[in-house]
Amino acid sequence: MSSPTETEQCIKSLIAVFQKYAGKVRNKCNLSKTEFLTFMNIELAAFTKNQKDPGVLDCMMKKLDLNCEGQLDFQEFLNLIGDLAVACHDFFTRSQKCI
Amino acid sequence: MSSPTETEQCIKSLIAVFQKYAGKVRNKCNLSKTEFLTFMNIELAAFTKNQKDPGVLDCMMKKLDLNCEGQLDFQEFLNLIGDLAVACHDFFTRSQKCI
Repeated sequence: MSSPTETEQCIKSLIAVFQKYAGKVRNKCNLSKTEFLTFMNIELAAFTKNQKDPGVLDCMMKKLDLNCEGQLDFQEFLNLIGDLAVACHDFFTRSQKCI
Repeated sequence: MSSPTETEQCIKSLIAVFQKYAGKVRNKCNLSKTEFLTFMNIELAAFTKNQKDPGVLDCMMKKLDLNCEGQLDFQEFLNLIGDLAVACHDFFTRSQKCI
């Protein structure tokens, strides 16, 4: 079996990271609020520490928790990753002046 | 500067892969149909070769191309990655019987 491509590795990593932080409290298929905060403070520490508003993580959790269950399923987690990736991509392409 | 976390590496890779395939034809910020087909046949060859319907890539492109421009921007590209990641995650968690 050939080694995974960069895209396949990304998909594997997204699942692995989600499963690493989900399931310590209750359901293995969802990130509880506590698990979300742990994920943000470890996996996205650079982003999290840069936020001036102490309530930003609470706001993010509310915005991401589309079905208001008080936890994030994998699709809601991916929306977070997607939003961050789009923000980073926009930042890079603005500086590269996308033509 | 500390090495990127697995999540940060994923975001970097998603941008790098998109930029690797986008921009050979026309705009660097979009995947043309040709670039999308090249991406699918190289980065997701295992998935692509497994499809019985020869028209599946055309259907996927139409579905992903939300603004019907005939090309995929980064958000539309991420929707593809997200759909595939959710399908893989659902497959794994069904076998792990998520409780």
